[in-house]
Amino acid sequence: MEPELKEILKDFPPGPLCRYRSKASFNWKEMCLLIQGKDALILKHKIWSTLKKDPLFAHHTSKPTLKEARHIAFKRARKLAEYDFMPTRHMVGRPELFDNFVMAVGQYEWSVLVKLQLLYNFAMSALYGMGSERHFNDIQRLMNKEIGACFCLTEIGHGTNTKAMRTTAIFDVKTQEFVLHTPDFEAAKCWAGNLGETATHAVVFATLSTPDGENHGLHAFFIQIRDTNTFENLPGVTIGDMGEKLGLNGVDNGVMLFNQYRVPRVALLNRTGDVNESGTYVSPFKDKKKRLGASLGTLSAGRVGIASMAAANLIKAITVGIRYSAVRQQFGPEDGSNEELPVIEYQLQQWRLFPYLGAAYVLLQFTRTFRKDFTDMQRAMMNKEDPDQLAAVGAEIHAVSSSAKPLSAWFAQNGVQECREACGGHGYLAASGLGNIREDNDANCTYEGDNNVLLQQTANWLLNLWSLVQRRQSVAPYTPLGSATYLDSAESILKSKCNLDAPHQWFEPQALLDAYQFVVCHLLRSTAARVQQLMGQKLDAFSAKNQAQAYYYRPLSIAYCEALFLIRMLRLLNDPNIPEPLRAVLKLLTALFGATNLMKNISALTQGGYFQPNTSAALEAAIEQLCERLKPEAVALVDAIAPSDFALNSALGHSDGQVYRHLEEFMASSMSARPDWWQLVVKPPMKASHL
Amino acid sequence: MEPELKEILKDFPPGPLCRYRSKASFNWKEMCLLIQGKDALILKHKIWSTLKKDPLFAHHTSKPTLKEARHIAFKRARKLAEYDFMPTRHMVGRPELFDNFVMAVGQYEWSVLVKLQLLYNFAMSALYGMGSERHFNDIQRLMNKEIGACFCLTEIGHGTNTKAMRTTAIFDVKTQEFVLHTPDFEAAKCWAGNLGETATHAVVFATLSTPDGENHGLHAFFIQIRDTNTFENLPGVTIGDMGEKLGLNGVDNGVMLFNQYRVPRVALLNRTGDVNESGTYVSPFKDKKKRLGASLGTLSAGRVGIASMAAANLIKAITVGIRYSAVRQQFGPEDGSNEELPVIEYQLQQWRLFPYLGAAYVLLQFTRTFRKDFTDMQRAMMNKEDPDQLAAVGAEIHAVSSSAKPLSAWFAQNGVQECREACGGHGYLAASGLGNIREDNDANCTYEGDNNVLLQQTANWLLNLWSLVQRRQSVAPYTPLGSATYLDSAESILKSKCNLDAPHQWFEPQALLDAYQFVVCHLLRSTAARVQQLMGQKLDAFSAKNQAQAYYYRPLSIAYCEALFLIRMLRLLNDPNIPEPLRAVLKLLTALFGATNLMKNISALTQGGYFQPNTSAALEAAIEQLCERLKPEAVALVDAIAPSDFALNSALGHSDGQVYRHLEEFMASSMSARPDWWQLVVKPPMKASHL
Repeated sequence: MEPELKEILKDFPPGPLCRYRSKASFNWKEMCLLIQGKDALILKHKIWSTLKKDPLFAHHTSKPTLKEARHIAFKRARKLAEYDFMPTRHMVGRPELFDNFVMAVGQYEWSVLVKLQLLYNFAMSALYGMGSERHFNDIQRLMNKEIGACFCLTEIGHGTNTKAMRTTAIFDVKTQEFVLHTPDFEAAKCWAGNLGETATHAVVFATLSTPDGENHGLHAFFIQIRDTNTFENLPGVTIGDMGEKLGLNGVDNGVMLFNQYRVPRVALLNRTGDVNESGTYVSPFKDKKKRLGASLGTLSAGRVGIASMAAANLIKAITVGIRYSAVRQQFGPEDGSNEELPVIEYQLQQWRLFPYLGAAYVLLQFTRTFRKDFTDMQRAMMNKEDPDQLAAVGAEIHAVSSSAKPLSAWFAQNGVQECREACGGHGYLAASGLGNIREDNDANCTYEGDNNVLLQQTANWLLNLWSLVQRRQSVAPYTPLGSATYLDSAESILKSKCNLDAPHQWFEPQALLDAYQFVVCHLLRSTAARVQQLMGQKLDAFSAKNQAQAYYYRPLSIAYCEALFLIRMLRLLNDPNIPEPLRAVLKLLTALFGATNLMKNISALTQGGYFQPNTSAALEAAIEQLCERLKPEAVALVDAIAPSDFALNSALGHSDGQVYRHLEEFMASSMSARPDWWQLVVKPPMKASHL
Repeated sequence: MEPELKEILKDFPPGPLCRYRSKASFNWKEMCLLIQGKDALILKHKIWSTLKKDPLFAHHTSKPTLKEARHIAFKRARKLAEYDFMPTRHMVGRPELFDNFVMAVGQYEWSVLVKLQLLYNFAMSALYGMGSERHFNDIQRLMNKEIGACFCLTEIGHGTNTKAMRTTAIFDVKTQEFVLHTPDFEAAKCWAGNLGETATHAVVFATLSTPDGENHGLHAFFIQIRDTNTFENLPGVTIGDMGEKLGLNGVDNGVMLFNQYRVPRVALLNRTGDVNESGTYVSPFKDKKKRLGASLGTLSAGRVGIASMAAANLIKAITVGIRYSAVRQQFGPEDGSNEELPVIEYQLQQWRLFPYLGAAYVLLQFTRTFRKDFTDMQRAMMNKEDPDQLAAVGAEIHAVSSSAKPLSAWFAQNGVQECREACGGHGYLAASGLGNIREDNDANCTYEGDNNVLLQQTANWLLNLWSLVQRRQSVAPYTPLGSATYLDSAESILKSKCNLDAPHQWFEPQALLDAYQFVVCHLLRSTAARVQQLMGQKLDAFSAKNQAQAYYYRPLSIAYCEALFLIRMLRLLNDPNIPEPLRAVLKLLTALFGATNLMKNISALTQGGYFQPNTSAALEAAIEQLCERLKPEAVALVDAIAPSDFALNSALGHSDGQVYRHLEEFMASSMSARPDWWQLVVKPPMKASHL
């Protein structure tokens, strides 16, 4: 092994976890390199070892107040920018490393990452992507950290429905200014991170009108909101603070109202549409809808990123859950030995945790490959390749990200909760680290598109493909990433029946993918039929679609995305260069992930006739057996994806497995404290009650 | 209506919620009286209106620090004791009112309730139940609030497995003292609420040994741990603080180690076993196991209480979720009207929230009737009624509480999360109130018995009954509460087939109960067979049982408990005195609850042959239709169970529906704040990067 990697992939100290580490059938270091990649490991190690040495990044020993949390998040974000772990040459040459930067900082703490990104990087991307030469100076000031930004799209009354935004920007020819205005509190811009108390500038979306009275739809402006000398709001700008949140409290989300606030004409980010000095609207796009799509296009990258943020959270949680389960002993056979079993020995504990371990690997692999798809698309766009091909890739990426983001967020959210409960009482201690993960990850379920609403985008795309299938046309040109190629075989898939009644037959990820493909085809067929039926009952298209969400659209999008997760894992498993022991264990893990999630579709599988009444029994038995087989592998599988102990920051999940020593150290810091108000305890109240 | 109730059941002010309130088919005030009961309403109103007027109980405008949270929780707990809302005459004469006291205070804030209960009431119950005359003085001191207590059972290394506790108490005849000792940190007492910095005394469980060297098992002692004059730990006692937790941070949980700590002989709570002056152990119980059971018996009440605590949390969350969904508008038909729909109009939103509204009602009704069962049992025990009958009731109550507590906790935990997500971004604001509910409720999943471990108790009891069924004996004598009477018809139930393929047939709660009874019988039969099969493969009983948890024991206990929930709702629905409009809507709500949860059992229903491949399609259609029917009822159903606006404390869930006004007020309080560190933002760092 290269010396650089030797330092990173160090052996673990002897301790309680060795018992299981020695049982693994594979080398965790090889797995680590395979599933994360050498460059990612080096970057993460550099970040964590740097932050660990810097006192500014020392973990809080007690929860900071809101004020403190924000102050320190700002200082850390600034310092992080100085460390420059992702220099411009990386961003251009190795964009896929960016996810690793995000994961490494996020696994340390999310607020600092979010704060940093919003202060400088998001705004720079927005100016670069939506602006023109006239905004280069602003980009330079952001780069120099002379100003800091926030991103204002959502309004109090409108989050998801961007078309209904009500902030207006009317051009005044006389003064060559746009007049920004907020009609009422419901139209106030909100949720913008850094707006609450940090940002000097803002990217603001507003509906643009020209003096001829025409409304040109949503446009972005880059405007100053606070005086850089006094930090007071500029006249015409009112800013409020959204206060404490369930998590991410280092980020100061704000709300902003404009009162006839005037900004220069050139504040408009004018790549897709501009207003010239005479007040005429000019745009390279003829179709308003397309223009809006292109404007909002820069946002779609966010969903790709959130999938890896969620994966990072799930990895942290499952590391804590599995390591602690391998140490914690409770109960044992009544054979007089008095030896208690580590709780990982119990089927129920395995069944609760191992599917999430599977999900962590699956998401890691998915996000790596999907990031590549995304950057390939960006490159093709810059090279102005075949526009039809680009449109198809873009639509598929939108469909994939619209289900992968929700599913990743939910796998993480549910996984963190399961780990919390699986760690029992000690999981409820802040020292477990699980609380922060749950609080921060929760936001992933909502921002960049509400999970449930987003899922509809995926189903819409699939139903468009289905209409091709119904017309016996190939879907292939519309699924260049191959996420739905199998729809071309829908007819034979829908006729197929499953005859796997021996549990071990379900150890094959391909068998699970076959079943998933059936589910997707079946749900597509029945969704299309259901919508037709509802429209036959005189419902308009909007209402018909809404009436088919719970048991059609929603499970359809989920099954499609989980099938894609399997497709991506199979691509890895079928790579002839993987060492055999790694392939073997990854196959088991993938099968467990696929099988436990396929169980959600028993209803579709039996209604569609793919499953016989007893097939699910074989699937259940397979899951039990897969759990048993993964028991000796679980700790080493965690070792291969776990962040450093510094980033993990959990008494229960430390890599040395010395759970009780770490808990003792944690509690020793506050031995025998006497509260200021102790005398109240022993001073009876005025009116004592009597027996 | 009586004047007292008129004040409590006031009409709501006009506002955005009227739109749906006017659509309800029933009178919410009648429903309120039916489902909560007059006395409960009066008590809750008294509590909330008193606390609302008392500045000490004013809600925090920002999250207090750990130190502040504990200080204020103590002051509030003390004040709450002074208010004496549940005087002794109530506790004796109307014990069922106690749950309403718990819910009312808990819906305001849980820490203050937990703190109060642990400081005085739990210890008094323990002394009263486990001690004797010699402890009356201690009871009196607790009553007078001269001392405050904590309850120490769990050890760092052992929570669930109480038999493995390692703290020792060895009797020293010479000094007539017990010597308490903690061998190492893993044996330290932990999690005790109030131990961290408040308690002067403790109920401590330790293994008692007599000078003859015999170990008499776990016993409870009431001992002093802090000097009441200086509040320093007494010599030989080391106390640590468990620090920040995921929730309940007003409660100071602590850890305690004894170093040969001597306490007087009479510290032993000696109702079930004593050591006399000559060092001889004397006990009215010959069987050690029975003695331990009697000692721990006082704890079982806790699970009954947690079910209503969880119900209280779910009620709060669903109130926020549904009221906000009826106000929040987003998207709408593209008919040019530009009118957006309240999100409650969407099937998916209904499908996500209404089953939890059903769960809230079901849990409310269940906890009321189960509390009655429990107090009836306590009364029968005091009257020393038929011991066999008492044993049967006790075992059934144990079985019921061991599944009802986990299920209630999970319904609440999952329901809060669903409401959080269903409220979108604004649900992530502390102002939504959902964060605190989630954090505090989480503990319900773990304490008083880990949810997953507890469920096994229920299955064990059911399997004992099943062995009677197999021997063709009646189970009736062993299920005096009627939770499993149907097992006597297991043979015919297992032969039955479901022929309900019209959705409306699933609107009958009885049809759902029939299906549930099939699931329970099927799972009992297959669980017993599976364990037999595993033992045939040379597994010992302990291991065989562990290998049958995921798909046998666990779903069995859950299905049994959900069937019981339906049984209890049917008892209410079949009451001839209920007004017809209330019965009609409760029937729909019960059906929705039953149907959505029955969907978890599709695998068992098809494997067992009860369902045909297409039956689940009818069930899904029924769920969709039930959601649609409950849409006009949901807001009024919430009104009938919601706590007062003061207790709810949510900008999104306020009964006036003025969501945006409340959000604006909340944010206005911090308009235009400038942080102390603002100059850092506009001062570029030393080394500026360049393009």
